[in-house]
Amino acid sequence: MTFKRVLDMNDRALREVVIGLGGPSQGVPRQDGFDITVASEIMAIFCLASDLADLRGRLGRITFGYSYDRAPVTVADLGVQGALTLLLKEAIKPNLVQTIAGTPALVHGGPFANIAHGCNSLIATQTARRLADIVVTEAGFGADLGAEKFMDIKARTAGLAPSAVVVVATVRALKMQGGMAKDQLTRLDLAALEAGVPNLRRHLRNVEKFGVTPIVAINKFGLDSQEELDWLLAWCAAEGVHAAVADVWGRGGGGDGGDELAALVARVVAGPNSFRHLYPLELSVEDKIRTIVQEIYGADGVDFSVPALKRLADIERNGWSGLPVCMAKTQYSFTDDASRLGAPKGFTIHVRDLLPKTGAGFIVALTGAVMTMPGLPAVPAALRMDVDDAGNPVGLT
Amino acid sequence: MTFKRVLDMNDRALREVVIGLGGPSQGVPRQDGFDITVASEIMAIFCLASDLADLRGRLGRITFGYSYDRAPVTVADLGVQGALTLLLKEAIKPNLVQTIAGTPALVHGGPFANIAHGCNSLIATQTARRLADIVVTEAGFGADLGAEKFMDIKARTAGLAPSAVVVVATVRALKMQGGMAKDQLTRLDLAALEAGVPNLRRHLRNVEKFGVTPIVAINKFGLDSQEELDWLLAWCAAEGVHAAVADVWGRGGGGDGGDELAALVARVVAGPNSFRHLYPLELSVEDKIRTIVQEIYGADGVDFSVPALKRLADIERNGWSGLPVCMAKTQYSFTDDASRLGAPKGFTIHVRDLLPKTGAGFIVALTGAVMTMPGLPAVPAALRMDVDDAGNPVGLT
Amino acid sequence: MTFKRVLDMNDRALREVVIGLGGPSQGVPRQDGFDITVASEIMAIFCLASDLADLRGRLGRITFGYSYDRAPVTVADLGVQGALTLLLKEAIKPNLVQTIAGTPALVHGGPFANIAHGCNSLIATQTARRLADIVVTEAGFGADLGAEKFMDIKARTAGLAPSAVVVVATVRALKMQGGMAKDQLTRLDLAALEAGVPNLRRHLRNVEKFGVTPIVAINKFGLDSQEELDWLLAWCAAEGVHAAVADVWGRGGGGDGGDELAALVARVVAGPNSFRHLYPLELSVEDKIRTIVQEIYGADGVDFSVPALKRLADIERNGWSGLPVCMAKTQYSFTDDASRLGAPKGFTIHVRDLLPKTGAGFIVALTGAVMTMPGLPAVPAALRMDVDDAGNPVGLT
Amino acid sequence: MTFKRVLDMNDRALREVVIGLGGPSQGVPRQDGFDITVASEIMAIFCLASDLADLRGRLGRITFGYSYDRAPVTVADLGVQGALTLLLKEAIKPNLVQTIAGTPALVHGGPFANIAHGCNSLIATQTARRLADIVVTEAGFGADLGAEKFMDIKARTAGLAPSAVVVVATVRALKMQGGMAKDQLTRLDLAALEAGVPNLRRHLRNVEKFGVTPIVAINKFGLDSQEELDWLLAWCAAEGVHAAVADVWGRGGGGDGGDELAALVARVVAGPNSFRHLYPLELSVEDKIRTIVQEIYGADGVDFSVPALKRLADIERNGWSGLPVCMAKTQYSFTDDASRLGAPKGFTIHVRDLLPKTGAGFIVALTGAVMTMPGLPAVPAALRMDVDDAGNPVGLT
Repeated sequence: MTFKRVLDMNDRALREVVIGLGGPSQGVPRQDGFDITVASEIMAIFCLASDLADLRGRLGRITFGYSYDRAPVTVADLGVQGALTLLLKEAIKPNLVQTIAGTPALVHGGPFANIAHGCNSLIATQTARRLADIVVTEAGFGADLGAEKFMDIKARTAGLAPSAVVVVATVRALKMQGGMAKDQLTRLDLAALEAGVPNLRRHLRNVEKFGVTPIVAINKFGLDSQEELDWLLAWCAAEGVHAAVADVWGRGGGGDGGDELAALVARVVAGPNSFRHLYPLELSVEDKIRTIVQEIYGADGVDFSVPALKRLADIERNGWSGLPVCMAKTQYSFTDDASRLGAPKGFTIHVRDLLPKTGAGFIVALTGAVMTMPGLPAVPAALRMDVDDAGNPVGLT
Repeated sequence: MTFKRVLDMNDRALREVVIGLGGPSQGVPRQDGFDITVASEIMAIFCLASDLADLRGRLGRITFGYSYDRAPVTVADLGVQGALTLLLKEAIKPNLVQTIAGTPALVHGGPFANIAHGCNSLIATQTARRLADIVVTEAGFGADLGAEKFMDIKARTAGLAPSAVVVVATVRALKMQGGMAKDQLTRLDLAALEAGVPNLRRHLRNVEKFGVTPIVAINKFGLDSQEELDWLLAWCAAEGVHAAVADVWGRGGGGDGGDELAALVARVVAGPNSFRHLYPLELSVEDKIRTIVQEIYGADGVDFSVPALKRLADIERNGWSGLPVCMAKTQYSFTDDASRLGAPKGFTIHVRDLLPKTGAGFIVALTGAVMTMPGLPAVPAALRMDVDDAGNPVGLT
Repeated sequence: MTFKRVLDMNDRALREVVIGLGGPSQGVPRQDGFDITVASEIMAIFCLASDLADLRGRLGRITFGYSYDRAPVTVADLGVQGALTLLLKEAIKPNLVQTIAGTPALVHGGPFANIAHGCNSLIATQTARRLADIVVTEAGFGADLGAEKFMDIKARTAGLAPSAVVVVATVRALKMQGGMAKDQLTRLDLAALEAGVPNLRRHLRNVEKFGVTPIVAINKFGLDSQEELDWLLAWCAAEGVHAAVADVWGRGGGGDGGDELAALVARVVAGPNSFRHLYPLELSVEDKIRTIVQEIYGADGVDFSVPALKRLADIERNGWSGLPVCMAKTQYSFTDDASRLGAPKGFTIHVRDLLPKTGAGFIVALTGAVMTMPGLPAVPAALRMDVDDAGNPVGLT
Repeated sequence: MTFKRVLDMNDRALREVVIGLGGPSQGVPRQDGFDITVASEIMAIFCLASDLADLRGRLGRITFGYSYDRAPVTVADLGVQGALTLLLKEAIKPNLVQTIAGTPALVHGGPFANIAHGCNSLIATQTARRLADIVVTEAGFGADLGAEKFMDIKARTAGLAPSAVVVVATVRALKMQGGMAKDQLTRLDLAALEAGVPNLRRHLRNVEKFGVTPIVAINKFGLDSQEELDWLLAWCAAEGVHAAVADVWGRGGGGDGGDELAALVARVVAGPNSFRHLYPLELSVEDKIRTIVQEIYGADGVDFSVPALKRLADIERNGWSGLPVCMAKTQYSFTDDASRLGAPKGFTIHVRDLLPKTGAGFIVALTGAVMTMPGLPAVPAALRMDVDDAGNPVGLT
């Protein structure tokens, strides 16, 4: 049994449980665990389905466990794909909202960027493309994760060819990548910034490997110095990369903080474009992972744990080798160790397990210590939350 | 630790679980279980709170476990009663809906009638009383459970004095109480009806013990014969009890199917009334249970299991003896054995455990084999549920 | 699955466990527990078997669990009764040892007196009977447990008719039964002794119900006063019961401390005797338990928990009603509450579960809070145990 | 908590368990597991202790768990090393037995060659050395495991310098290493033998790395052909290695089947000798493992899993880096994959975890899928075991 129950609660005590205790009428005892809802394969399926019929087919193809002779057992074997589809038939319709400035936005679906592909629903994207000239999709986590998965999983599934990639950078984050301590980041430090830009350079070179032109959006923070912003713009120019400062937050939603960036994007989008995927589906799963790890993360290679090696053999035997790969890696580093910043070299990525998501249509590769049920902070936020006498919330910020 | 997680899912494999496995960062291993949401003490509290401040106080008084020296530990000891209140601050506002005939109805809160007191929120009742001349509250399960708990728990908490009690009866159910098989109930059988009315008589005598006049609402089913309905009306008259046939379903929501019953209730409500509780709070918990069991169920007495006897001593030591009692008993029988129908005599009620609900403000007495996490049918309804090609639901009825 | 693993270690953390975790190659997950070896049905079988063939048959008849449709499954269904017999084929031969005075003694088998019948092997008893004129068997715990089980289980199985019963009493224990605190027992107190003898009287009357003459052996402790010993002898005389002081420990193994008692026993054994069992096997299990509880313990009656009632129905359905009953009750009191001393009246025995031991050939009735895996003291004896530099043990006494 | 209970029973359902369930009086719930007795660190300690005082010291140094702040907690912290020593004070005395031919042999202690160092007690070895001119110690599993651990752990602990190493080889095993199927091994096949000898060559070269002369004992099986035995002797001669056929089983214990081998060993032992350990203790644990893996197994290198990397850091922090390493690897292959035979090249050893055995005084490196609680065959041997009517065992062979 490989499919876990999900809850929208970060309750780490439910990561590993034994259920079905208490006798024959209480179910069959087994080891189990809970994930958070956004880590469920159903969320990933929901965001990759092209319509209700495709949703139904994908739900039926979920492998939720294995028989005693290790053959995969699917939701369709249970015959409940119809009931699952029924539960989701309203949810699959995209939500149209608007920004403070009145720009339309579709907020629809949220597959965990760690364990899944990390961008909104394909139906929302296709709907938006029929309604607008230019559609921007947010892809979760760093460009090594979000952009790669968008290109190799979502764009491939939908038959989309992106026309440009906006890589969001901040002076603060680049200084941290350059080694500055987190509580020092408001201090002007051009040396730290210079030490951090190799991280940005690797992301930009990665984007170009997909045949798409990158644009750097320098997301301005209130305490960023003009000197640092200028330095970064100059660095981008020297690298031959488009860049613009975006001050959407500072100048207000209805203001002109994003105008320069928007104009730049529009110009790039109108230009030539030769989108390609990083790897063909014909590669073995092992080679797909090696390609991503070497080309995008800059690793020397990949180590598979003993269970992961067994899983590779299972994948081959079950005919799942043609699926794309969905990497589950920390977003804090190009490596699988969250503490290694900058643009590290000479490292190996450790794949500890592989999770075939046959409904979503990809193979998740778990690297390092990534989790599918987050924990809570040491001091719970609940301790400062309350209502006042008038019934107003207290302690939410 | 006595407070369980809750889910709105009848998942019997979660009744008894072991959680917190997997090492020090995954929480502390312990035996636990899930209840359904409506079985949570928070639902009971929500339905007995008079306002937001009272809600906050009751949440803080929940005893969720015991220290190593067996002292109760409350939510207020954790300091999260404010956060819990914040989560419920919108939910506590009653919902106003209407029947097809346009009668206003407040649907608000649903404490499981098995494990809690089984009627809607006190705030909804008080709101209704300020908006209407006559307010009718549905009290879940048989009058031995629903009415008794309404009188001794909700009415006592709210300081209400009910003016009348409508006891709903059906020809079908009375024939079943008289020993008729379930698949025979559409057959006319005055003998079975006559054998079943002692069950109704006990309910009516019970209601009178609270000093309130009972009215029998004969809920008409399509296949009920006029002969049986007439016989039952005549029996009620002979017993000296008000009765009327209600055909609300048959004659439509906007029709006159309930007019006669409504007129009868209005007349009784206008009459004299001497409401009293069944027992004073000063009685020991043991004696409160004995009073309910003998006066309302007609039992000879009560047996406490060894754990229940220990729990009685705990209740005494912790100063909780003054709380009312909330019986958890099958709704199918006056006894704790669902198969004993009619008006049985010569039986004992088995109390297997006592659960102090110090936030809600009552002591639950678990009798027989009552459960707080129901199971599912042998053939899941999901197997016939689906959507058709047009996206319409299939198999829901 | 009702048959537990056993260990010769009082490890309370193993009383309730979940096993078979870790994946398909690690067995099937299930709830389980460990008992101590002497609580195993195999120990009881070992002590009731008449020879190797009978042992093999009884091992095969062990019901170790139930199928999904609740039919009993036996060791013979597994086909491993031969292998189990093989493991025990040497162990079944009795051990002959001798006392310091050279009296031969057979020490062979130890079924836990709590959960089983509490006396040595039938083979040892039969061997001794062929070797000696008079054979004395120790029957564990109080005469309400040890003697009753010897008479109704072992003597019935073996076709034995005991000729006399020696009831061991001490001045200390009788004073404690009379209400004296444990740390005061060395103080002379005839009033306490007088308050305690009703306990002894009930044991003596019980023995007579089996048609056998009781003899009181007053086991002398070093600090017992002659005044108390004399008072107790006089009381026995007044009750018309044989009694003698035994000072075996005080006057040494080879001495004459037991001569008077031995002579008395020899005289009684030579006299008339009309042994009978307390109940016939034809009584229902419920009535057998009621008979023991009322006749031997002096209880008003017996309460069966809801699970115990279900088990009674199972026993009936599976054709096990003809088996004798083996009571599991605290040895500290005639009641199932260890703190009620003396000869209490007006109490009920609570049967919380019934364990069919179809191999041993009896039904265990678990009362009160009796356990099958004891715990350890708060301060482990291990803390003071060691070896000295010469390799000699330290801290064993 | 890292120290498991042990049992002398191959009960795989006990490999991973949850214990301490059932409430506060049944211990504290936690995840646990059972090992077989020979896999316990206490067995390893027992076999490395020089005397009772050293045994006591080592038992006290066992790290059985970690505090919440990850500091090691030892048996001495509990204060029970004395009690443990007391339990073992008789067991530590070696057993003297004899072969059928009357040769004295000390059989004493059996640390599992997988998880521990796999040879008998140091006290037995030292006793034998005081009693005889030449002492032979059996070292469990292949020479890559048994010999390496004897040299680097036992010989180092005892300060011994072995004078020769007898490598046992069989025609059958070498043909299997050469790729022959198991059920074909009785067939004469010089090609298979030739294909298999590179495996033997690597073992012989490994022995020479310790500065000790190897001698091949060709253990003759009944069906071995003279042609194969001659070929193997000739190959050994060509390799410049001493070899002799041993036919101890065939010619009887009292016969002369081992004379030639014995004479050869005596000659080598009398010759020059320059014993050295494979690695100095000053190397880091990581480097010790790398040395063994590259020098002895012929691997390219070693991969540490993410948990193993954390454990390496713990070992460093706790000051255990100076301990020797005890490899836990399959005995069927130089690699950690039991199916790779011969003398494979181009492989990596996967260390999945490290277990500090601070009492025994080594760090166990778990590679591949090695287990510490074996399972049982698919068809239990118990099914054919029984006793016959005369009480004789049946089905033991």
